[in-house]
Amino acid sequence: MSAHSPTQAPTAARVVELRGGDAQGESLGVDLAGHPGAELSALSGLGLPVPRGFVVTAAHGSGSGGVDGAALDEAVSALLRDASTDGAPPLLVFRPSPPVAARGLLEPILGIGLDEAAATALGARLGDRRAAAELRCRFTQMFGSAVGGIDPYYFEEELYAEKSAAGVRHDHQLNAEQLDSLAARYERLYLEHTGHPIPATPVAQIEAALRATARAWRGPEGLALRAASGTEHIGAPAAVVHVWIQSEFGADSVSGTMSTRDPVTGAPQRCGEFVRGRRGGEPPTTPQPISGIGLAETSLQELMPGVWQQLGALGGVLEGHFGAAQEVQFGVERGALWLLGCREATLSPAGTVRATVELVDAGVLTAEQALARIRPRSLDALLHPSLDPSAPRTLLAKGLAASPGAVTGAIVLTAADAEAAHEAGRSVILVRHETTPDDIRGMIAARGVLTARGGITSHAAVVARQMGKTCVAGCGDLEIDLRGQTVTIGGVRLAAGDAITLDGSTGSVLLGQIATVEASMSPALDTLLRWADERRTVGVCANADTVEDAERGRRFGAEGIGLARTEHMFFDGDRIHVMREMIVADSPAARAAALERLRPFQRRDFEGIFRVMDGLPVTIRLLDPPLHEFLPERREDIEALGRSMGRPPAAIRGLVARLHEKNPMLGHRGCRLAISHPEIYEMQTRAIFDAALSLWAEGLDPRPQILVPLVSMAEELVAIRARIEAVAGEYGERGERLRAIPVGAMIELPRACATADAIAAHADFLSFGTNDLTQTVFGFSRDDVATFLPAYIERGLVKDDPFVVLDVDGVGGLIELACRLARKQKPEITIGICGEHAGEPRSVRWLQRGLVDYVSCSPYRVPIARVAAAQR
Amino acid sequence: MSAHSPTQAPTAARVVELRGGDAQGESLGVDLAGHPGAELSALSGLGLPVPRGFVVTAAHGSGSGGVDGAALDEAVSALLRDASTDGAPPLLVFRPSPPVAARGLLEPILGIGLDEAAATALGARLGDRRAAAELRCRFTQMFGSAVGGIDPYYFEEELYAEKSAAGVRHDHQLNAEQLDSLAARYERLYLEHTGHPIPATPVAQIEAALRATARAWRGPEGLALRAASGTEHIGAPAAVVHVWIQSEFGADSVSGTMSTRDPVTGAPQRCGEFVRGRRGGEPPTTPQPISGIGLAETSLQELMPGVWQQLGALGGVLEGHFGAAQEVQFGVERGALWLLGCREATLSPAGTVRATVELVDAGVLTAEQALARIRPRSLDALLHPSLDPSAPRTLLAKGLAASPGAVTGAIVLTAADAEAAHEAGRSVILVRHETTPDDIRGMIAARGVLTARGGITSHAAVVARQMGKTCVAGCGDLEIDLRGQTVTIGGVRLAAGDAITLDGSTGSVLLGQIATVEASMSPALDTLLRWADERRTVGVCANADTVEDAERGRRFGAEGIGLARTEHMFFDGDRIHVMREMIVADSPAARAAALERLRPFQRRDFEGIFRVMDGLPVTIRLLDPPLHEFLPERREDIEALGRSMGRPPAAIRGLVARLHEKNPMLGHRGCRLAISHPEIYEMQTRAIFDAALSLWAEGLDPRPQILVPLVSMAEELVAIRARIEAVAGEYGERGERLRAIPVGAMIELPRACATADAIAAHADFLSFGTNDLTQTVFGFSRDDVATFLPAYIERGLVKDDPFVVLDVDGVGGLIELACRLARKQKPEITIGICGEHAGEPRSVRWLQRGLVDYVSCSPYRVPIARVAAAQR
Repeated sequence: MSAHSPTQAPTAARVVELRGGDAQGESLGVDLAGHPGAELSALSGLGLPVPRGFVVTAAHGSGSGGVDGAALDEAVSALLRDASTDGAPPLLVFRPSPPVAARGLLEPILGIGLDEAAATALGARLGDRRAAAELRCRFTQMFGSAVGGIDPYYFEEELYAEKSAAGVRHDHQLNAEQLDSLAARYERLYLEHTGHPIPATPVAQIEAALRATARAWRGPEGLALRAASGTEHIGAPAAVVHVWIQSEFGADSVSGTMSTRDPVTGAPQRCGEFVRGRRGGEPPTTPQPISGIGLAETSLQELMPGVWQQLGALGGVLEGHFGAAQEVQFGVERGALWLLGCREATLSPAGTVRATVELVDAGVLTAEQALARIRPRSLDALLHPSLDPSAPRTLLAKGLAASPGAVTGAIVLTAADAEAAHEAGRSVILVRHETTPDDIRGMIAARGVLTARGGITSHAAVVARQMGKTCVAGCGDLEIDLRGQTVTIGGVRLAAGDAITLDGSTGSVLLGQIATVEASMSPALDTLLRWADERRTVGVCANADTVEDAERGRRFGAEGIGLARTEHMFFDGDRIHVMREMIVADSPAARAAALERLRPFQRRDFEGIFRVMDGLPVTIRLLDPPLHEFLPERREDIEALGRSMGRPPAAIRGLVARLHEKNPMLGHRGCRLAISHPEIYEMQTRAIFDAALSLWAEGLDPRPQILVPLVSMAEELVAIRARIEAVAGEYGERGERLRAIPVGAMIELPRACATADAIAAHADFLSFGTNDLTQTVFGFSRDDVATFLPAYIERGLVKDDPFVVLDVDGVGGLIELACRLARKQKPEITIGICGEHAGEPRSVRWLQRGLVDYVSCSPYRVPIARVAAAQR
Repeated sequence: MSAHSPTQAPTAARVVELRGGDAQGESLGVDLAGHPGAELSALSGLGLPVPRGFVVTAAHGSGSGGVDGAALDEAVSALLRDASTDGAPPLLVFRPSPPVAARGLLEPILGIGLDEAAATALGARLGDRRAAAELRCRFTQMFGSAVGGIDPYYFEEELYAEKSAAGVRHDHQLNAEQLDSLAARYERLYLEHTGHPIPATPVAQIEAALRATARAWRGPEGLALRAASGTEHIGAPAAVVHVWIQSEFGADSVSGTMSTRDPVTGAPQRCGEFVRGRRGGEPPTTPQPISGIGLAETSLQELMPGVWQQLGALGGVLEGHFGAAQEVQFGVERGALWLLGCREATLSPAGTVRATVELVDAGVLTAEQALARIRPRSLDALLHPSLDPSAPRTLLAKGLAASPGAVTGAIVLTAADAEAAHEAGRSVILVRHETTPDDIRGMIAARGVLTARGGITSHAAVVARQMGKTCVAGCGDLEIDLRGQTVTIGGVRLAAGDAITLDGSTGSVLLGQIATVEASMSPALDTLLRWADERRTVGVCANADTVEDAERGRRFGAEGIGLARTEHMFFDGDRIHVMREMIVADSPAARAAALERLRPFQRRDFEGIFRVMDGLPVTIRLLDPPLHEFLPERREDIEALGRSMGRPPAAIRGLVARLHEKNPMLGHRGCRLAISHPEIYEMQTRAIFDAALSLWAEGLDPRPQILVPLVSMAEELVAIRARIEAVAGEYGERGERLRAIPVGAMIELPRACATADAIAAHADFLSFGTNDLTQTVFGFSRDDVATFLPAYIERGLVKDDPFVVLDVDGVGGLIELACRLARKQKPEITIGICGEHAGEPRSVRWLQRGLVDYVSCSPYRVPIARVAAAQR
């Protein structure tokens, strides 16, 4: 039964001693002791210097009562007795200790017992009567707010009245007597509001604070918090009572926080800030760095070398216990160091990786534990440049974080302008309503892409991630005036050529240039990935269409190419013209002639990729998009095409109109092209065969696989396999080896899932295309989803964009069905997935449980998938 | 084990006697005796006059040998002996008797034994030497072709030589001697080609013919036939040998065919044609009617009243045995009637219904057998007018038979022109590239619709079927010149206003006006449908959007409205303007105001339908199409809309552009509209509630059901149900009854199938929308499928258009999954289907086996579905 289970039996609160620094007390968990209580209990357990005190554990169950009065009485008495200094009992701190953060609702009360007499004694001890008076005022106000439930407004009124009476303007101008008077005002306020004075004894104050804490926890705000955090079963949160370390005043007092590691790099060196104790009446001082010699500000290293040494020794102890970098709160009172809390430090992704790997090297964590501690998505930031966190910035608008990285460039509004600027050596951001394959060359030329429409899997987003370009998509606050060559982003009008910065990790569009920091594959990341590779059972491949993508994929550890799209190869350079000639050809002979001219291009593309991936599988998807995507849309481009082909523009226009589709996603594309125009796939098959033969002749080991897209029925695969076999037959004896090249089907339609057994019978492997599968399973066009999906997310109908995180219930159900049918038909079949979800950690973790043999994602996501696939 | 099972053990051929007309022989099946053999065996078994003879049964199995020589020898000897006339042995007929039609491959040989001596005897018997010589020539040629394998070309050469020698031009000018000479030429030809003469004895001729038959059956053409018909296991087809009834020559000889019923009406009266015997040298005579007195041509009734009487007595015997109207071949030789074969008569659909019902009345068939004999689709023709089969016609082009019926009208090219012409009282055919909802009013005004693009479930086709309008869709040979107001159909240029005729049952586009015949629900059809209703377990409802549709549905026997689409209600009259105001509204208040103006229209629509369907369920589907379908597309229409709303045209253009979707099928439509714009469904819900309350107040029994379209996740249904409940809450006490109105989900997306359990938990009923489900399961857009599906059908990848016949493997698999999940979650849930397939017989037969509780189809298809649902 989980500690958080709502069926837990009611338990009453107990009092558990914190044995400050000299002995090991009982170690308490968060559920029982809350966060501060558990931390102090743990630190105490490690023999570290924590203030003496005790934890009042949480009362579990709504019917459970508070702590036993006698036990509390005894604990307070013992504390006051044992921790007295020079015979004077110590002042105490009351800290509510909830199991979840509750700032503003449950605040600590510093200075339990700080009445007029105690203030006098404290003033004498500090040698600073004004400081003691100030602390007494604060205690009275804290107690009045937390226990008396008095609105801060009343305290401000009293402060204002006191300052008026004193004739001063600022708080720190009040002297000790005036502060005493103010404290008395606050005490009267308490009496007026509650009908009785502040309880006189520490134990009575603590009892009242405990009751107030339980009240707040059960009130409306607490209710919301408990409902949201699954802590309904906790009747009242725990509390900690300990000796007050008074580090705020006095030359030999400081307070601060220290991280055991550099948050940016993860290097094991103490980092942090501290504030020096001051004299009463002085304004608070600014924080200073803990470490460093000869800086502009005095460091703690210089100020209190002994304390600094002590802090340095903590790193190993804390990380050894907690298994992660820690941030500690500390106080120094009259030269003595006390730890007041600790929690896991928030490191940068790179820092987290380094720290985690070093903790494994130190024997603190196992590799499995280390892998489980990494959020795979955070690795994304390690592979792309990111904005310098310290750089100032002006946010113009927010879009979707479509492809990570941070880039600055001049606004361009057309692909042609992007190319021209790129050739002129300028960095540009391509800004479009949405992109089409016509924009590919512009996207290649641009450093980043910003679109007004389209979701996380729109053309712009997918292509950008594939290319590793930064992209912010679906930015609703973007208007484009192409004719005027201006854009309006978040109400700010900018001209083409003006600089903007995109942060593809947050979806931010920023004004002007912002400094960025580069990232690289660190040795620690390499180590982590090696551990992941040793543990995962699912293969990780890259989606790559170019030699550059393939190289990047191999560098990032891809075990092959799971998806090499061939369509982008037809947009490059002059090929698009030949492709268009093929499409507008008015006879099979003319079409065949154009295809023959495309074949050497394809062959060279394949040779290049095979060479990079030598010895690893390269899965080539035959042509997928509808032919009209290759034709121009604009009147002038159509006319130019007509001229270049010696055909009347009307003929080209007519063809464009004939090829127009109402729902191109569900139209004449994928292997449907091969049923109506078999010669296209035949050309591609020949190019694959030629490339393989040429590399075999060099003694290399190319391993092509042919992937047939958009299969909806086994009959399609049968017909296309027959054509591929026939092409192999053209190669005579050499055809034998070519015939062994695996042929697989892309499973990206519901019908392919429902008939996966029939398809598997004719396939050597299957590859789920989860982008298209998500579109057809939901009936969501990824190009149009931005018009309604935001309303779904806003109203809580869906938690995650199904194009980002695999929809386990619907799409996943069909994937499971398909895997079961396919494996029943052909147990030895290889099954992969090459959609966007292949690089999304939650999806990968789900998919790797016996469903698929490999995932294939964009090169930049390969490390993410490697880690995710190793997480159980 | 089926008789056609390929695993059947080899069996040798046997000889089985046909006991002509006087005794019952062994009755043989088609598999053993082939078609002619089985027919003659059956007729013989009925004691009817068939020629004496025998059947050589089929040798089953490729390893099986031919017939035993001794048995054949004995059978031929017995036949020649027992059937001799005046001491002369009879001439015989050899008829190959395959189990499937094999014209051109296996032809009979008439006149076995007809050598020179037999010809002389025959001439004497006929009193017509030339006739005998002609028959001998024909026998020799038949034998030479069938057994000798001699190309007809050689016989023509010889005939030409003989005519040249005789100095005549036409065959019939050859006299008896010259024909004898020709027969001798043919015999020489045989010798030259085969190396041996025509076998001398009848038994040798029959043995040779049997071998030739087996050879042909096993040859390439036979192979194809056997493969196509599943008769691979038959080693050689059967053959029939019987006495030759020589009805071709002589005054008291005739040959003919007779149907036991009128093929058009199905009335039990003998119909058919016969040819009178002629004299040698006369050209063949033309066929004359069998029945009738005082016609232009002499009938058999007049010529041979005795034979006519005999034929009349056959009807009851034959139909009583075969259970269906029959067509018999007969021959009369010298006044004696012989039956030579019979087969089921091809009646018109109306005739079939009448004949079948009458056979049940006569106790020949059970009602179940009668239902099983009806092809439900054929009923379609009974419900729509059809082309007069005898009318002359000029075919312009063929398209898809999208919606049945035959209509003539003047060509119009726009919806507005159709409306104007309709108001002027003219019949028009709306000719469009494709139709959109903008064309609805034009379609209402037109008698028929012809489109150049779009498949069997394109907008034009679906709406036309729904309306009962004739439609020919996807007519590729159609070009439209809107500016020039001309069309070119199959190369013929026509102007707007020219008349064309559409035959929606065949997809024909015909020039000018063609006469048609009206159809009505006959008493026989009523009887048949009553039997069907008594036997089917699945309900049959109609899809109807209007009062007229609802009335038609109820008239045709619908048990409710399974789908009342609400979108067409917004196109009528002025509503479209209000609808557009709602869409372009720039504030929620303006939108609400426009919706309030639409509400009374909706309410009246619903009241009208509820009234017609009083006491039966009416399932109202809330708004489904994307909003942009309601906006104009043309520049001038956009400007007009802007003017009428006092908004700048640019604003309207901008809105149209913003609402544009790349894949509207997968876009912002269906219940997605209700998530982003809840007020639309709220208005529709109020209109339904108002209509129900008003009819309840009248004491009527309206039974509305609310259907939520395009559900992809249970969360959508939950959110929309909550809104419907809230609207019911507005009605105070009366809301209780409104809250009981069932709310269901349309299951038309794969995800809805995969998560049907979760959806069923919140639904009172489910309704499969198989049109959209087929689109998303296959990834086929029904608007674009015409560009590639024909290639699939042509290449045999799919047998049936999945938009016509339910794809049982893929779409059906998901339907089964959904039914199983839904019923597991909620066993009492009602499940229906309202897509196109609900009116397609094969689909209905598949669906009714425990999957759905009801089907709902267009009113015209209701009778079809009623019959199909009763077929097991």
